[in-house]
Amino acid sequence: MTSPTPVAHHVLSIERHDAQQQKSPELEFHVSNQRANWVLNSPDPPGFCQHIFGLIKKNVFPHRNSTPSSSSSQKKQPPSARLIAVLSNIFPVLSWGRNYKASKFKNDLIAGLTLASLSIPQAQISHLKYTLKHTKSPCRKSFSLLTSCRVLDGSVVPPLIYSVMGTSQELAIGPVAVVSLLISSMISKLVDPMADPVSYRKLVFTVTFFAGSFQALFGLLRLGFLIDFLSHAAIVGFMAGAAIVIGLQQLKSLLGISHFTTKTDIVSVLGAVAKSLHTSVRFHNWYPLNFVLGCSFLIFILITRFIGKRNKKLFWLPAISPVISVILSTLIVYLTRADDHGVKIIKHFKGGLNPSSVNQLEFNGPHLGQAAKIGFICAIIALTEAVAVGRSFASIKGYNLDGNKEMLAMGFMNIAGSMSSCYVATGSFSRTAVNFSAGCQSTVSNIVMAITVFISLQLLTKLLYYTPLAILASIILSALPGLIDYNEAYHIWKVDKLDFLACAGAFFGVLFASVEIGLLVAVSISFGRLILNSIKPGIEEMGRLPGTDIFCDRAQYPRVLDVSGVRIIRLNSGSFCFANANSIKERITRCVTKEDEKEETKKTINGIILDMSSVMSIDSSGIIALEEIHTKLVSRNIHLAIANPRWKVIHKLKVGGFVKKAGSACIFLTVNEAVDACLNPSSIGLGNC
Amino acid sequence: MTSPTPVAHHVLSIERHDAQQQKSPELEFHVSNQRANWVLNSPDPPGFCQHIFGLIKKNVFPHRNSTPSSSSSQKKQPPSARLIAVLSNIFPVLSWGRNYKASKFKNDLIAGLTLASLSIPQAQISHLKYTLKHTKSPCRKSFSLLTSCRVLDGSVVPPLIYSVMGTSQELAIGPVAVVSLLISSMISKLVDPMADPVSYRKLVFTVTFFAGSFQALFGLLRLGFLIDFLSHAAIVGFMAGAAIVIGLQQLKSLLGISHFTTKTDIVSVLGAVAKSLHTSVRFHNWYPLNFVLGCSFLIFILITRFIGKRNKKLFWLPAISPVISVILSTLIVYLTRADDHGVKIIKHFKGGLNPSSVNQLEFNGPHLGQAAKIGFICAIIALTEAVAVGRSFASIKGYNLDGNKEMLAMGFMNIAGSMSSCYVATGSFSRTAVNFSAGCQSTVSNIVMAITVFISLQLLTKLLYYTPLAILASIILSALPGLIDYNEAYHIWKVDKLDFLACAGAFFGVLFASVEIGLLVAVSISFGRLILNSIKPGIEEMGRLPGTDIFCDRAQYPRVLDVSGVRIIRLNSGSFCFANANSIKERITRCVTKEDEKEETKKTINGIILDMSSVMSIDSSGIIALEEIHTKLVSRNIHLAIANPRWKVIHKLKVGGFVKKAGSACIFLTVNEAVDACLNPSSIGLGNC
Repeated sequence: MTSPTPVAHHVLSIERHDAQQQKSPELEFHVSNQRANWVLNSPDPPGFCQHIFGLIKKNVFPHRNSTPSSSSSQKKQPPSARLIAVLSNIFPVLSWGRNYKASKFKNDLIAGLTLASLSIPQAQISHLKYTLKHTKSPCRKSFSLLTSCRVLDGSVVPPLIYSVMGTSQELAIGPVAVVSLLISSMISKLVDPMADPVSYRKLVFTVTFFAGSFQALFGLLRLGFLIDFLSHAAIVGFMAGAAIVIGLQQLKSLLGISHFTTKTDIVSVLGAVAKSLHTSVRFHNWYPLNFVLGCSFLIFILITRFIGKRNKKLFWLPAISPVISVILSTLIVYLTRADDHGVKIIKHFKGGLNPSSVNQLEFNGPHLGQAAKIGFICAIIALTEAVAVGRSFASIKGYNLDGNKEMLAMGFMNIAGSMSSCYVATGSFSRTAVNFSAGCQSTVSNIVMAITVFISLQLLTKLLYYTPLAILASIILSALPGLIDYNEAYHIWKVDKLDFLACAGAFFGVLFASVEIGLLVAVSISFGRLILNSIKPGIEEMGRLPGTDIFCDRAQYPRVLDVSGVRIIRLNSGSFCFANANSIKERITRCVTKEDEKEETKKTINGIILDMSSVMSIDSSGIIALEEIHTKLVSRNIHLAIANPRWKVIHKLKVGGFVKKAGSACIFLTVNEAVDACLNPSSIGLGNC
Repeated sequence: MTSPTPVAHHVLSIERHDAQQQKSPELEFHVSNQRANWVLNSPDPPGFCQHIFGLIKKNVFPHRNSTPSSSSSQKKQPPSARLIAVLSNIFPVLSWGRNYKASKFKNDLIAGLTLASLSIPQAQISHLKYTLKHTKSPCRKSFSLLTSCRVLDGSVVPPLIYSVMGTSQELAIGPVAVVSLLISSMISKLVDPMADPVSYRKLVFTVTFFAGSFQALFGLLRLGFLIDFLSHAAIVGFMAGAAIVIGLQQLKSLLGISHFTTKTDIVSVLGAVAKSLHTSVRFHNWYPLNFVLGCSFLIFILITRFIGKRNKKLFWLPAISPVISVILSTLIVYLTRADDHGVKIIKHFKGGLNPSSVNQLEFNGPHLGQAAKIGFICAIIALTEAVAVGRSFASIKGYNLDGNKEMLAMGFMNIAGSMSSCYVATGSFSRTAVNFSAGCQSTVSNIVMAITVFISLQLLTKLLYYTPLAILASIILSALPGLIDYNEAYHIWKVDKLDFLACAGAFFGVLFASVEIGLLVAVSISFGRLILNSIKPGIEEMGRLPGTDIFCDRAQYPRVLDVSGVRIIRLNSGSFCFANANSIKERITRCVTKEDEKEETKKTINGIILDMSSVMSIDSSGIIALEEIHTKLVSRNIHLAIANPRWKVIHKLKVGGFVKKAGSACIFLTVNEAVDACLNPSSIGLGNC
């Protein structure tokens, strides 16, 4: 409304007086009035357009101009230093790479080898194969073609890209079941993979390209804050649920079952296990050797972990045991030819490199719009999964993911993947768990994994043929127990019951429905709670702390003293808006009418003071409610005083015309001044308020 | 944690000292330490179960025990007075009926007559007829049966019930298009109305009964707060959009069009009008007499309104003009036999009473579950419509609807309706607008309407046969212009841009899609904004107001002074939770690191003070973020002080273990004390904090 110059004048005049020493009534009125003027004459907050513009600017150039002084210091930097800053912003490897030590590499090497021993068979064969066998016709066809067309799973190129751009230390990159299923079922609706495998193949790469582009776009638009929407409680629940579900799925390999379900909920998985076992035993084609082999190596891994914990010198033992298991078991099977006795092995192993597929991207075909749509859906699902997994493990280690960088990394990784015959890759829970449990220290484990996979594809195809599937299951199983954190769940229950509800929602959602449903339930509960909290029509009565000018909540500080004739009410809600304006209004006016009915002679109220210090925002419904409160109080000859309105609130009260209607004498800087004014209404012209 | 007794001790010891006069450093430390203890030793807030229990209790017995003193005064009341209080709580007519005056009745009588002149033909004939003719087969059949089975529309019994139980003064009760369409299309999926009209009829009543029961149940469960979810801005937009849409629909009668659409959006309606006119003109069966008649009476009504505004003595003229129009036009048509020249009249008029249908309710049929489901959906849709309409007009007159009573009234009204051959009724926008514009003062206009309809059905069937449809359209049209409030929309734009967005969303949603979509858009925008507001990771730096102990936002009060060596940061968000914890943490730690990089020698920070006075709630993610901030600051040898945590926040910090980890010396009652402590850390043992 006005420029800040009059404020400066007031400040000076008050400093000259040294207000706290000599308190004559006139001077006090003067001072209090001056201070109320500070409230009324504060500069306007930035407008809506200005705000939006600032938000965009801040999002696009995040580290520039955050404070005026820092920008000047930044200008002094030489261009080369600024270039490095920008580059290491895009490639986090540049900043953490400098402090990367050999001791860390040792851990990463082992973790990478473990990952590789899992990735090669798990992704290329087992996952695609079982889906191929047991899904219904369209998916089945498409999966068979995903294999036969040699669309690789992306265990080489994408992890390499992610390792230089990602901010998660543990995330292991690869294809996941949900995305694979989604992409194949949606594309096979457009192009029949049997009739036209070439078009189908092209479409897969185009969709992958679109998915990557969307993910990169999200990162560039700096939508990374969205990953914060998974609360700590939700992550604890999600993690425990996912660990159990992934563990149950390993029963398939561990028990050597051929027929399995593609669903992930506990009921379907256990049902499939029971049914398969029943059928296998009945037809005498169940081979307990799988189970024996898997369990013995699971016990071996668990024992080495126990030893490693007890004896700090043997810390390397648990880390190296998975790789040893893979090598040992492969040798055993190879030497004893156990696969002839029913031990399931990887078999159909195809070596070779990822060929380039740049020329297969099609941007002028008839399905371009559809491909973009499928890409968008895949991008969202893949990001959700990766972010949930990444944040979960980051929160165990106590660091934060940078959502924007994650999205950028995922995006470029999939764009690169689409050019090297890979389909959409993302962060896989089971492999990340193994990576974490193998003690990885950075994304270098992903690099090791990629290189190992690359070399294996070239050289070791003959040997890897004999790796038993049960070993892979036991490696994954051994990584899971650490992810179920009872103590944290109990702690959450103790601190916050509704938070625990979100935790339980995520847990049971993942367990009984699917990962997406679980995350959705948790986010819904968290946001529902947030809304409830912010619209709760809370008011609390305040009193004076004895011997001070401080006014506090009567419930929190039971010994505060009443101020006779004045009721001080603090709005206990961050926004005074449509959702709570009516009930707040009713509660305040009810205070007054009750007081009236009770003892009319003994206690009369001169004023009601609304402490607005907690109210961050007000909307038009709130302003109308405030006007109605004012009208009602005036009709009963009670003064209304507003104490300590925040920046945006006083601005809106001015613009909305409340200050004009109620008179500017209603506004005070502190509750204390408002109380003084209400007790002596005539002295400062509150009479007409 | 502890009982409030130690607090009482502290209070006494401080009062004895009169702390403000003699400020020796030791004493100051003592006082400040005591006060911090008040914060730490405040009684525990009510637990979760206690809170839920209290909430239920408050909802079930709303006016009991709100304050201890008032409950004692209530006990003194004689039982008869309490009975009256309870009864007038259920039947608001008992409270407003006492002050009801003859002058009000005059207005209500005219409004009721106007309503009746609209209701009889509009509901029974025109609405069902056009739907019957122009919807596709299943709906068409069912609608024809709704008529032929003599399922009445409920212009007699439901309004009577509503008038004694409802809290809206203007709401006119009757069937609305959306609900009619919904109920008939859903039921005809269960029972073919052609094949089995008796079962169909029974099912309609059963569904109506269920709808009423659900509505009453919502009222009993006190879910009435849900009606507050329509913000003032949304209502302004909804109202303007609905007025335009309803106005356009009147073109059908006004132009005498036979073929029309059942959709309500502006594109469909205008398209239907254009197409019909085109066809009619082409085949020479368009009769402009309808238009002439309608327009002349519209002009007549508008002129009387203009006269009534200019000449206060003739205030009765605009109110009575619609009824005069109906009588006059009916006479004209009857005398001139204009219906032979193409003027559309009501025609097929069926007299008679609502027969009882109690024995037709079926609670053991095969479709019971389905009937309950349809009833639930109808209950929700009908309530949404009624509440939106009721609130809109209430906000014009400046009073509030009681959501619980509205739901109860709607519920009982429909239960009674189901027993007297009516289907689901609710508040109709067009009739309410006419009622409002005719100057109704209370729900008595509904009673007048019901009685008039009742008498007309008995006696005037012959006469009403000739009422031209165009007159009804012109009455509705005349009521609409007052509902489009440009000024208020501009005011909302000025005050709050996002509020205006909700307003525009409701307007365009109603205009281009449907009433439901419009309301959904508005509610989504309002809630989206609420969420954004409450998770905004706002922090603001504070400084000392010159010459005071008051600390204020530096942006709001530009002349505040820095405290050297201390940064005071206020969290600008109502909840410190998962959605903003990370960004708040980053912004606070960035403050510190920036300061470090800048000028290391000149300015060193001793402490960061977090003013938590605005934070109403904290969750486990927030506590973890606070712990991480503390760890980071400690590693840089900076003190962290928490000032003025609210009741629930300090409780959670204690339970969550933060106070234990960071040390209780971190907690202060006021920012001022925290500043003192940070400037002399050694004196009060903040060294280890």
